[in-house]
Amino acid sequence: MVQTFKAAYYGEPGAYSEQAALQHFGGNAKLKGCKFIAEVLESAGKDCKYGIIPIENSIEGAVTQTYDLLLDSDLTIIGEEIVKVSHCLMANKGTAQKDIRNVYSHPQALGQCRGYIEKHKLNSIPYYDTAGSARMIKEEKPRNSAAIASKRAAELYGLDIIATGIESNHHNYTRFIVVAEENKTARWDKTSIAFSEAGKDKPGFLFKALNCFADNGVNLLYIQSRPIPGRPWEYNFYVDCRGSMKERKITKSINALNDVAGMVKVLGSYKSARFNHV
Amino acid sequence: MVQTFKAAYYGEPGAYSEQAALQHFGGNAKLKGCKFIAEVLESAGKDCKYGIIPIENSIEGAVTQTYDLLLDSDLTIIGEEIVKVSHCLMANKGTAQKDIRNVYSHPQALGQCRGYIEKHKLNSIPYYDTAGSARMIKEEKPRNSAAIASKRAAELYGLDIIATGIESNHHNYTRFIVVAEENKTARWDKTSIAFSEAGKDKPGFLFKALNCFADNGVNLLYIQSRPIPGRPWEYNFYVDCRGSMKERKITKSINALNDVAGMVKVLGSYKSARFNHV
Repeated sequence: MVQTFKAAYYGEPGAYSEQAALQHFGGNAKLKGCKFIAEVLESAGKDCKYGIIPIENSIEGAVTQTYDLLLDSDLTIIGEEIVKVSHCLMANKGTAQKDIRNVYSHPQALGQCRGYIEKHKLNSIPYYDTAGSARMIKEEKPRNSAAIASKRAAELYGLDIIATGIESNHHNYTRFIVVAEENKTARWDKTSIAFSEAGKDKPGFLFKALNCFADNGVNLLYIQSRPIPGRPWEYNFYVDCRGSMKERKITKSINALNDVAGMVKVLGSYKSARFNHV
Repeated sequence: MVQTFKAAYYGEPGAYSEQAALQHFGGNAKLKGCKFIAEVLESAGKDCKYGIIPIENSIEGAVTQTYDLLLDSDLTIIGEEIVKVSHCLMANKGTAQKDIRNVYSHPQALGQCRGYIEKHKLNSIPYYDTAGSARMIKEEKPRNSAAIASKRAAELYGLDIIATGIESNHHNYTRFIVVAEENKTARWDKTSIAFSEAGKDKPGFLFKALNCFADNGVNLLYIQSRPIPGRPWEYNFYVDCRGSMKERKITKSINALNDVAGMVKVLGSYKSARFNHV
């Protein structure tokens, strides 16, 4: 298959972000793993056409760094993917389960497998990425050690899977966003908007802002607040709403919001992932 | 001074939570440090009368674990404290700045001092607590190592302060809540409420819920959303509003909310910290 464009994702081959990228682009994109979320955003629109980064996990909640970085970026959200997270314990061939003392993974994955880790009296060691911990186990071969990562990571790095589905809660999904310089998908069903009071200083700001959507019959799907660094107890708010920027009720809501809020930024209109694969 | 009651706080002596406890209780309380936020909540109402835990940092945002644990707890928020966070680099006596290679601290503190750490080419090693990392440096004396913690931690553990105010952003504050079994302070100015759709399944739920406050002229100060584990894309919402449970507009809002939401829990009415020390 001809790979006509490049897409950057967060992590290493075998990371859940890579799975989201494969789900979104099929085999059409040449994929590039990045060590930092910020690096994905720097690549997208430069050496890569798209970037794909996690924004929310159904157990851990918002990926706050993604929210913060989106505000400073000129990229637009053009798509969304949901990936089911299922963790495996993996080690080099010949390592017996009873010999494993240390387990390496991303802190979120370690947290999600806490029940298994405690039951087997393992020592948790944080690592920057799930798939990266699998690669490290393969390359550095630390003694009595295993990694927690996806089944795909075990296959990619040639590790033995010792246990599957070791997360405590099996309803575990991560939502990813696809970002790009251009927004060609404005006719879809979901729009993400950021706003803040930013000097307008009106009593009841938050309610007045949300009222802009209600007055126009726009349904809010999600709201997230993040502190503004250097301005204690002031916040950037992020809302996801049903509808696209091509719909009059959405543009009217945004016009009204511009009168109330000091800062309004439309992050993108795109196709909601809930309807992609359900 | 006679210490007539006990209060549990998160961390070890020298932790910012201990500072919040001292600020709130003066010398009246005998303080007990706890390794986990959950342990503070277990102690409060049992061997300790009060608990004090972080809920929000002005740079990092919500302490999500505190929000999640509050829902399962029978304790009430009865007070709030704000502590200015200012980090110091500290090492055992005789350690020269040029010899320091590794720096231990809580991941949030390491993140807040990233500029300093990168400038001095130090290696960051996460530790569960800022003050705990200072104690470890004192007791275990790892070579070429320092801790990032409060000035008070350096004094308590007898470490030399090598640099002060090393955080990148000096507008750095953490907000703490005081919890107890009884709520004797219902006449104060701030009320925290949690709610969720929980089976009511109404389109536009979030707006209808927020409307309960607006209809009664209640000003929302803050909103936070947290995922409900096991129910992907369903959320618990937390709002802070101006007013106390002794005010009719607040009780009317809550009655209205009970009609809209499947779950409503009043977390407490208390005196806002913004007016304590400003």
